[in-house]
Amino acid sequence: MSSPSALGIVHPQSMHFPTPLILQSGAQLAGYTLMYETYGTLNAARSNAVLVCHALNASHHVAGAYDDGDAKSVGWWDNMVGPGKPLDTDRFFVIGVNNLGSCFGSTGPMHDNPATGKPYGADFPVVTVEDWVNAQARLADALGIEQFAAVMGGSLGGMQALAWSMLYPQRLRHCVVIASTAKLSAQNIAFNDVARQSILTDPDFHGGDFYAHGVVPKNGLRVARMVGHITYLSDDDMAEKFGRDLRAGEYQFGFGVDFEIESYLRYQGDKFSEYFDANTYLLITKALDYFDPAARFGGDLTKTLAQTDAQTQFLLASFTTDWRFAPERSREIVQALVNNKRRVTYAEIDAPHGHDAFLLEDPRYLGVVRAYYERVWGDLNQAGGGAA
Amino acid sequence: MSSPSALGIVHPQSMHFPTPLILQSGAQLAGYTLMYETYGTLNAARSNAVLVCHALNASHHVAGAYDDGDAKSVGWWDNMVGPGKPLDTDRFFVIGVNNLGSCFGSTGPMHDNPATGKPYGADFPVVTVEDWVNAQARLADALGIEQFAAVMGGSLGGMQALAWSMLYPQRLRHCVVIASTAKLSAQNIAFNDVARQSILTDPDFHGGDFYAHGVVPKNGLRVARMVGHITYLSDDDMAEKFGRDLRAGEYQFGFGVDFEIESYLRYQGDKFSEYFDANTYLLITKALDYFDPAARFGGDLTKTLAQTDAQTQFLLASFTTDWRFAPERSREIVQALVNNKRRVTYAEIDAPHGHDAFLLEDPRYLGVVRAYYERVWGDLNQAGGGAA
Repeated sequence: MSSPSALGIVHPQSMHFPTPLILQSGAQLAGYTLMYETYGTLNAARSNAVLVCHALNASHHVAGAYDDGDAKSVGWWDNMVGPGKPLDTDRFFVIGVNNLGSCFGSTGPMHDNPATGKPYGADFPVVTVEDWVNAQARLADALGIEQFAAVMGGSLGGMQALAWSMLYPQRLRHCVVIASTAKLSAQNIAFNDVARQSILTDPDFHGGDFYAHGVVPKNGLRVARMVGHITYLSDDDMAEKFGRDLRAGEYQFGFGVDFEIESYLRYQGDKFSEYFDANTYLLITKALDYFDPAARFGGDLTKTLAQTDAQTQFLLASFTTDWRFAPERSREIVQALVNNKRRVTYAEIDAPHGHDAFLLEDPRYLGVVRAYYERVWGDLNQAGGGAA
Repeated sequence: MSSPSALGIVHPQSMHFPTPLILQSGAQLAGYTLMYETYGTLNAARSNAVLVCHALNASHHVAGAYDDGDAKSVGWWDNMVGPGKPLDTDRFFVIGVNNLGSCFGSTGPMHDNPATGKPYGADFPVVTVEDWVNAQARLADALGIEQFAAVMGGSLGGMQALAWSMLYPQRLRHCVVIASTAKLSAQNIAFNDVARQSILTDPDFHGGDFYAHGVVPKNGLRVARMVGHITYLSDDDMAEKFGRDLRAGEYQFGFGVDFEIESYLRYQGDKFSEYFDANTYLLITKALDYFDPAARFGGDLTKTLAQTDAQTQFLLASFTTDWRFAPERSREIVQALVNNKRRVTYAEIDAPHGHDAFLLEDPRYLGVVRAYYERVWGDLNQAGGGAA
């Protein structure tokens, strides 16, 4: 059977880091494990590595397929990463890494806390975008990568790419930030808090120690996902796909499913509640809320982005119908980079699919990223390190 | 102590209707009670009555204050209705009526089902905007009001006003529809379903029979209100009022309150969950979802509004930052009325407060309504029925 991905079958790897990691909160993780995957080949100069950072519910499994015969086991950005894809694994050595606190293998709330011998649960320390980037930098060290050709991400992944450009300015030549923002708005935080309250008040949450009770706060997670999902789609796209279509052709005059949109959202919520960890959801929404690198510069994004290296180049992309992180949020970043005389490419893509557009097949969008990686490749070869 | 309302102290009244009401679903209510209030004096010609229809969590208590020394007991539209107010009770006889299924005194899910002798709970029949209007029409009959000078409402109240203009076209001279829509979008329904799922899956809901268990599904109601509340406010207004302001000046690195917006929303949710009935919330969101008078005209709003009387005049108003029922939704109604050669006034008010603007003090908005009621008054006197 042919693989459902051009990359073929891929295998996750893991690496343990015994040195404690000091977190932004002041807490520390005594030691931790990161799950990661790599695609393509690291060249002799170790200069063709690209780090792909993941968003809310994704993982290190960026591209390729697992050998489990399940079409769903294809990586979340398989349309972006692979041989001949916009981020071409025939040229680049691509790394996907699962963030700390996640539920896909890297150390997280469901793992044992060495201090107690019991799962961390809600005691897993709150981690930030910056903490993730610090952990990723250690992985880069271990893999012998001093400088990435690019660090790239969409949404929360874009925040990590942006944080890389400020925390490790010499360690990336290009920074690709898609459908992201330099900080969440009050409305963004409000939606995240609805999701958190839904989980925290689910009796099956047990203060985060639901593992010990053999239950999962499914109802809370389900509602959290439903509300989140609404913010990923555009109003227009929802109208186009579902409108007021009725499941059974007429009103049921009850509280079951009337509208197709209800059926769709409940299904998304159910599915999510079956595989995602509630503590991870809390942690990741907090990382989103807390990201605000300009805070310690009095909100001045230009001063904030002066931390980036003058040699680092940027691609920013946004989508017209994204109301979660609207184009205006990307434009603010672009303007602040321009104010710092950084080289920036900006694409505002007219796409109907809202925030989710960054994950979807869109020829204009993928074309923009492809063209940008042509430049990254040219830049790399000019620098003399392109030969694989 | 002077009254907190220009109208002074008001008293609710109730009326029982023993004749069964056949509902849109086919179900029937054997008998029912409506709570209502009136302000001003009905003139001899019985021509100066204005019906004010309420939205989601409001009631018959439109204006005036109760004699309980509580400033909060002032009616929900006291800035709109009263002596010298835009809807001037020195001129008009204003009626507020609590809708069926509500939790403020009219027959609802917490009342005994005569068939079982136990509270209706989730067995209370699903009621629609049209059902409410039919019940209101019986109240008008009982009060001897053959034709209203105006029927008026905001949001869900505006839907009732619009339904009046089609179900009882001869029974209103003016129809005032504020911040409303001819039908909910997929996104609107999606948010309502998140709220419903939050309530339905709260273990304290007990399939709607929580009364018998001596509990209230507070957590579900709380999350439902939080998500609803976000949609009532504009993104900009939330940014202006709360931004990223921190309660304690710094991150807490936990899941308590970090941001002021979280504190505000949780407070709104808590407060709501203490006074509002969960079954009522389910019913009212369904009434919103189901309202779609154009459905039986193949979605053609012009054909739909041809049901209105050629003599009925309309005021439509919307608010620029309302993303729940955006100005576009009002414009559709205006266009369809114009297509039917109806006399329509339309005001699109540049206001920062989102959907909630229809309840707030805004000189331009209140000025528009005041000017319109001057016309209603002039119209009434021209018709020879103005003397109180």
